[in-house]
Amino acid sequence: MKKIGSVGWIEKEVAACGPSDAICRPLAIAPCTSDIHTVWSGALGERENMVLGHEAVGEIVEVGSLVKNFKVGDKVIITAITPDWNSEEAQSGYAMHSGGMLSGWKFSNFKDGVFAEFFHVNDADGNLTHLPEGVSLEAACMLSDMVPTGFHGAELAEIEFGNSVAVIGIGPVGLMSVAACSLRGAGEIFAVGSREICCNLARDFGATQIINYKKGDILSQIMDLTDGKGVDRVVIAGGDCDTFDAAVKMLRPGGKIGNVNYLGDGDYIKIPREAWGCGMGHKQINGGLMPGGSLRSQRLLNLIQTNRIHPERLITHRFKGLSGVEEALMLMKDKPKDLIKPIVIID
Amino acid sequence: MKKIGSVGWIEKEVAACGPSDAICRPLAIAPCTSDIHTVWSGALGERENMVLGHEAVGEIVEVGSLVKNFKVGDKVIITAITPDWNSEEAQSGYAMHSGGMLSGWKFSNFKDGVFAEFFHVNDADGNLTHLPEGVSLEAACMLSDMVPTGFHGAELAEIEFGNSVAVIGIGPVGLMSVAACSLRGAGEIFAVGSREICCNLARDFGATQIINYKKGDILSQIMDLTDGKGVDRVVIAGGDCDTFDAAVKMLRPGGKIGNVNYLGDGDYIKIPREAWGCGMGHKQINGGLMPGGSLRSQRLLNLIQTNRIHPERLITHRFKGLSGVEEALMLMKDKPKDLIKPIVIID
Amino acid sequence: MKKIGSVGWIEKEVAACGPSDAICRPLAIAPCTSDIHTVWSGALGERENMVLGHEAVGEIVEVGSLVKNFKVGDKVIITAITPDWNSEEAQSGYAMHSGGMLSGWKFSNFKDGVFAEFFHVNDADGNLTHLPEGVSLEAACMLSDMVPTGFHGAELAEIEFGNSVAVIGIGPVGLMSVAACSLRGAGEIFAVGSREICCNLARDFGATQIINYKKGDILSQIMDLTDGKGVDRVVIAGGDCDTFDAAVKMLRPGGKIGNVNYLGDGDYIKIPREAWGCGMGHKQINGGLMPGGSLRSQRLLNLIQTNRIHPERLITHRFKGLSGVEEALMLMKDKPKDLIKPIVIID
Amino acid sequence: MKKIGSVGWIEKEVAACGPSDAICRPLAIAPCTSDIHTVWSGALGERENMVLGHEAVGEIVEVGSLVKNFKVGDKVIITAITPDWNSEEAQSGYAMHSGGMLSGWKFSNFKDGVFAEFFHVNDADGNLTHLPEGVSLEAACMLSDMVPTGFHGAELAEIEFGNSVAVIGIGPVGLMSVAACSLRGAGEIFAVGSREICCNLARDFGATQIINYKKGDILSQIMDLTDGKGVDRVVIAGGDCDTFDAAVKMLRPGGKIGNVNYLGDGDYIKIPREAWGCGMGHKQINGGLMPGGSLRSQRLLNLIQTNRIHPERLITHRFKGLSGVEEALMLMKDKPKDLIKPIVIID
Repeated sequence: MKKIGSVGWIEKEVAACGPSDAICRPLAIAPCTSDIHTVWSGALGERENMVLGHEAVGEIVEVGSLVKNFKVGDKVIITAITPDWNSEEAQSGYAMHSGGMLSGWKFSNFKDGVFAEFFHVNDADGNLTHLPEGVSLEAACMLSDMVPTGFHGAELAEIEFGNSVAVIGIGPVGLMSVAACSLRGAGEIFAVGSREICCNLARDFGATQIINYKKGDILSQIMDLTDGKGVDRVVIAGGDCDTFDAAVKMLRPGGKIGNVNYLGDGDYIKIPREAWGCGMGHKQINGGLMPGGSLRSQRLLNLIQTNRIHPERLITHRFKGLSGVEEALMLMKDKPKDLIKPIVIID
Repeated sequence: MKKIGSVGWIEKEVAACGPSDAICRPLAIAPCTSDIHTVWSGALGERENMVLGHEAVGEIVEVGSLVKNFKVGDKVIITAITPDWNSEEAQSGYAMHSGGMLSGWKFSNFKDGVFAEFFHVNDADGNLTHLPEGVSLEAACMLSDMVPTGFHGAELAEIEFGNSVAVIGIGPVGLMSVAACSLRGAGEIFAVGSREICCNLARDFGATQIINYKKGDILSQIMDLTDGKGVDRVVIAGGDCDTFDAAVKMLRPGGKIGNVNYLGDGDYIKIPREAWGCGMGHKQINGGLMPGGSLRSQRLLNLIQTNRIHPERLITHRFKGLSGVEEALMLMKDKPKDLIKPIVIID
Repeated sequence: MKKIGSVGWIEKEVAACGPSDAICRPLAIAPCTSDIHTVWSGALGERENMVLGHEAVGEIVEVGSLVKNFKVGDKVIITAITPDWNSEEAQSGYAMHSGGMLSGWKFSNFKDGVFAEFFHVNDADGNLTHLPEGVSLEAACMLSDMVPTGFHGAELAEIEFGNSVAVIGIGPVGLMSVAACSLRGAGEIFAVGSREICCNLARDFGATQIINYKKGDILSQIMDLTDGKGVDRVVIAGGDCDTFDAAVKMLRPGGKIGNVNYLGDGDYIKIPREAWGCGMGHKQINGGLMPGGSLRSQRLLNLIQTNRIHPERLITHRFKGLSGVEEALMLMKDKPKDLIKPIVIID
Repeated sequence: MKKIGSVGWIEKEVAACGPSDAICRPLAIAPCTSDIHTVWSGALGERENMVLGHEAVGEIVEVGSLVKNFKVGDKVIITAITPDWNSEEAQSGYAMHSGGMLSGWKFSNFKDGVFAEFFHVNDADGNLTHLPEGVSLEAACMLSDMVPTGFHGAELAEIEFGNSVAVIGIGPVGLMSVAACSLRGAGEIFAVGSREICCNLARDFGATQIINYKKGDILSQIMDLTDGKGVDRVVIAGGDCDTFDAAVKMLRPGGKIGNVNYLGDGDYIKIPREAWGCGMGHKQINGGLMPGGSLRSQRLLNLIQTNRIHPERLITHRFKGLSGVEEALMLMKDKPKDLIKPIVIID
């Protein structure tokens, strides 16, 4: 990213490796919708000559002297969010906000990202995870952001056994939310989307009904399918500030909303007063950035290793070499019908 | 209440006592701001010839055949919210919404209230609590609504030891929220109000700072007092849909809002997008009707009996006999400077 | 049950149907290991001429006047635990202990059970669930006890995404615990058992490793398989008071144990002091009776209807007519190698 | 500590200060019962020439290059438990077990303690807290261990508003548990102890009843006082493995036990099978080491600054200068009648 609206290759010094840090070269990287927002919508504000990218599997080329669990040559999974683990926020259970709201998100935000020959990872022990034998680069690369963000939606909505859930938005994150809700014990899962390739994968990942927003208002579709009762939980992984209007309305008293959609525009989230019980309906509204860190990656990696989830199925387009990044990025920008998620394999 | 905007005495049959129910005569009753909203703002929609009132201590004059814990002549505390305990909602932990959102609220809403010679209580075993020796009618009457609603604000905000809290609104409910936050282990408590009588009691109940909204924007006052960091928790017990704007802005990431204010007007609650972390700030928004029921009353009664709380201090005006109800109600409507809460002692 | 150690048919009056109650005739019933304990180990103390059985699907033949959701002729699922929903314990979230510890368990304990031509259900609205079209009697009958008890083990252990779990005991309850852990997002699931038929079903239900206790100490097997780290969670669905020794030892700090095994013998549960961190290891020990009630049944039924679980696969032996009950019971007593769970279809 | 059973002054090199660390000199220090256990009971196993002590307020004399929040000359509160914040255990919410069960406890366990001219603190930003103006050394020094450990007992027992609680053991930790339960909203608090000085302070800190174990069995005393119902919560801050027998028996179904007592002897904790509901009574058993870290200290410090707690009232004996440490330690060993807690003021 050269500036808002403009991308291209730039030359930069490799960042210095502090005593707790690591320098990696990428083995596999993936562009994310937020990279698109950063460049073309200016979602983070102006950035100049910043390297994009926060989804990667890499190989360590340098480690700091205090790093205990990693050495040069280790293949590792990098989380998109790399907190400062001794910060006040991390100690309070919200490491993703270490140093300020959303500030655990450093790659391609406060520092250079992973679309580079080499990139810097703060707190290697706290934020890296060994890539085990038998796990593909494709599956592993989805552990940077798609899996933990999608799964966080289900966590924020606090799914209980047998809950009915609506998952609004079934791009790659929403699809992982569908998988997460299913794996967390939801009953009916209403997946709201329209593109056929996404709908099909949503069904495979555990959705029981597809709600096509192009075929009518999603609120009335879901109310019809639930005999007017609505759902126990809503996960929001797409849409905008207005999406909360329908979400609150389709939610039963005592229900919970988990939002993992980055809301780029608008002044206010729309929470409808009456449907929210005039302030007294016990409809909890949660929204949060994915947790990062090595333990989180390891836990989700366990789900891949035990065949509980198959995030590599998100990948519809494959590129080779760093030179493929630009094409992959443009693909994310243009969102063709057959795209869910592209990946670039470097090695 | 004769109709919206009009009150007066009416003659009605005493309701029939079902096998699980009780009929009581009032010993002490108190009007609530929501009675005012019901009559003069039409907050619940049209109601004709409905008896008002949902705060009472009473004496049982009739009990159903299935009632095990109560007999005629027992003095009892009645909760404003009287759920159907075998309903699906009660089984899910949200008894106050039994039969539909907010439907655990029956008195002066779906059926006649307690400002009458006799009133009906559904599920006596589930919803009544014995008035013990040594607890005053004044303190006990506050257990119907003021204490459980105020305390629910602190519960919804999930106060942890040492949290800084803003309590917005210090009428009788907000004052009990201040007491609840203090008793739950909060550190700094910023109480937002203006009337001197309320501010003084807020200090006695545990507030460490008074924020006078008449002396400037509450958000900037609180941000100044916290070195720009904001607070860990917000309890909303006053204001309107716009109050959430400041509440979200003064809240730190990982913080929680607990609303117990009935929002009577407006289409949408204002949740500011950026301050809400663009959907990712982990600022949880909760709002809920007080839980009712006998166990809840007993637990809060324990706090009176062990001298942890003194809700009788809310009472600033006292009346005698049923004929005093109208005057007490008008007092609530007019809110003179020296009013916190009136009570009518019948016996 | 005639007395401890003796079973046979007896003649009894049909219980009276109270205003909230229902009388049902059984459509499908299943004997449970606890029936065996009741008769042959005297686990509940002496009982004379008590009808056994607490797992049933039935048809309503009579309903009380206050019952709103059911009518004569309705086919219903009955939960083994039928709480008094307005009790103090139910209001505190522990309905299964309504009226005293374990007292939500009424069938074949404090009153006659379901192995009869007709049986009585207290609080029909609170404790019955409609049997929907398309759900087999076999699957539905497992919703009385096997599914909710097995699932409660996973709930008590508070499984998080990617946790490693040991499930000790894979009889019918333990097998449902395996399914529940898998459906709750566990990673590695170590199922401890020995009979081939159970081990095979454990694998189908989501176990990743079988630990055969006949092939050596289970603790050392699990420590070996986890590189000496142990597991994040333990569900106990078999064994005895000594089982907790190994369970605590295999558990990591911050881990949780969920017990759903009825402990019939011994004075003390064995919690090893050192492995429990000398009292400071944050190894939480939970044990609890299954929650009952209509909502719970409905939620678990949703999991059958959405094909998330297949509890009918537990059933290995089928009998026809009430006369088959005795044979089914004896089968449970003798536990042949090919038995998991018998069922008796009445209609 | 020279070896088990023997104490005295030793000469040692000052530890090296790593890039994240700090070296402090003590301003106030306090001996703890666990120092006594370490030396005279050999509770941690053999230790040779180890400096004792883990409760201190100090002044920084050296800081590592990566430390952001502290500089030489700052006065700081040091927590007894100083976790590695980027460890897997810390990321899972159990920082006190970072590096292995109980391994967040480093002072006078895995490394030299604070009874020295200078001592080393790992991760200064994560584990130190600024001593503010107006907070006495006496109060602040109690924030190292007495307050956080005592308060953790109330946290582990998950006190809810109006709960009845038994606090077993009212030495300095138990007294802080009494204060914590009171500040968390408990109703009745039964404090179990015998020494008059402790009983009096227990009453001041919020106990409503004193149970003198010298005047009869504590279980029967508590059952009598609660009409045979028992209590909702138990905090264990004294006694031994047998104490759990009475604790489980006095606990109601759905109740919780929080243990913060270090159990030095015995093979097994005694959990009585029948009183534990034969494994099904929902009586949760928790025990855990205090959480450490800077945020935790800050939160508890807030409670001192807002006059919610007065931990300096624990201090009954005062000494001056490092030379006073030995006498203070011997006092803790001998426990005279008038002792609660000694302190040594260095500066």
